[in-house]
Amino acid sequence: VLEEGGAEWVDVARLPESEGGGVAAIRALLDGEHEGGLPYAPPILRLGRLVLAQTVAISELAADRLGLAPSSPEDRLLARQHGLTVADVVAETHDCHHPIAGSLYYEDQREESKRRAEHFRNERVPRFLGHFESVLERGGGTWLVGDDLCWADLHLFQLLEGLAYAFPRAFERSTEERPRLLALRERVRVRPRIDAYLRSERRLAFNEDGIFRHYPELDDPD
Amino acid sequence: VLEEGGAEWVDVARLPESEGGGVAAIRALLDGEHEGGLPYAPPILRLGRLVLAQTVAISELAADRLGLAPSSPEDRLLARQHGLTVADVVAETHDCHHPIAGSLYYEDQREESKRRAEHFRNERVPRFLGHFESVLERGGGTWLVGDDLCWADLHLFQLLEGLAYAFPRAFERSTEERPRLLALRERVRVRPRIDAYLRSERRLAFNEDGIFRHYPELDDPD
Repeated sequence: VLEEGGAEWVDVARLPESEGGGVAAIRALLDGEHEGGLPYAPPILRLGRLVLAQTVAISELAADRLGLAPSSPEDRLLARQHGLTVADVVAETHDCHHPIAGSLYYEDQREESKRRAEHFRNERVPRFLGHFESVLERGGGTWLVGDDLCWADLHLFQLLEGLAYAFPRAFERSTEERPRLLALRERVRVRPRIDAYLRSERRLAFNEDGIFRHYPELDDPD
Repeated sequence: VLEEGGAEWVDVARLPESEGGGVAAIRALLDGEHEGGLPYAPPILRLGRLVLAQTVAISELAADRLGLAPSSPEDRLLARQHGLTVADVVAETHDCHHPIAGSLYYEDQREESKRRAEHFRNERVPRFLGHFESVLERGGGTWLVGDDLCWADLHLFQLLEGLAYAFPRAFERSTEERPRLLALRERVRVRPRIDAYLRSERRLAFNEDGIFRHYPELDDPD
């Protein structure tokens, strides 16, 4: 959302500690060494004196400032609904590789992960993707809400990218009959600012320390 | 939120089908037999022509209409942040009894549930409750945001009620040194409209088909 909106922003966690970044800077926010709201966990947006956590809250605020929120009150509510549903899928995806506890290594919950991932791939992914395909179909096929891209479309794009990375075989199977979702993914990917971002060093590639992890044993079998 | 705000509302799922309620009415909304937004799942608010899903989105809208949202823009954002963090805890609570799949019975994932619940009780609950205690302490000790009750306080109240029902022993242990949380719980509970609601038939008692389930084997051992 920050990138598509053309914001100037800094990923503080990736700044050296000598420049006021790194883990110490995040720790200070979590410990409340600032005025304003207390975050539970990253991501955290700092904008002047405001300190705000929670992905959906951050994106909505950024979208308001950057012209990426719908204009009508009803459409703003629907964007929020869709953003929250995407967030639900993201949380379920995380728990595919951490069904028992975030504090344990994946290797210590691998058997439970295999069991959970099979249900996720076969029940949850098709149902969530089917839902968003229906939302697109109902609205004309291009964007989730109204006639223009909004922040919720960017969240859906990131979800599709993440699922395609983590579960390439299941994703291909589940999107065979979801042409509108695949078209949205391409439509977002080629936007000049998104394209430049994806090619930049600011974009962290998906990896096995993040939410979307590619463990072949959790994807469809060959 | 609807009750504290004095709204006139109907729980359509509990109306007889002969009066346009029941499962059929919910099914029709999920199938999109209406104009407007398509929900993924209940809860769903219908307000005139608007159809809106996602608990946090519904509560914020209701709070805006009923005078239960903070007035300053920054406080409105913080209420959203806190409401979303409460929602994260609720989702984690659900997954204590369904760590593998929502489509399986609890009995078919009991061993995984025991393993997950132990981590939840010992790591997650204390950390989440500690966070909210700190938020209260930071803000003066009474409400999460500013000087007045807002919708996020009602969400936190419901979470505390639910955790106390589901994990009575762990809840008692985890709140021994959280006086502000316990005081908020009592402060909300005795509000006249909340008190009347909790005593009414409109309030569904916690039960083992809901999100907050009391399975003694998932709570602290004796």
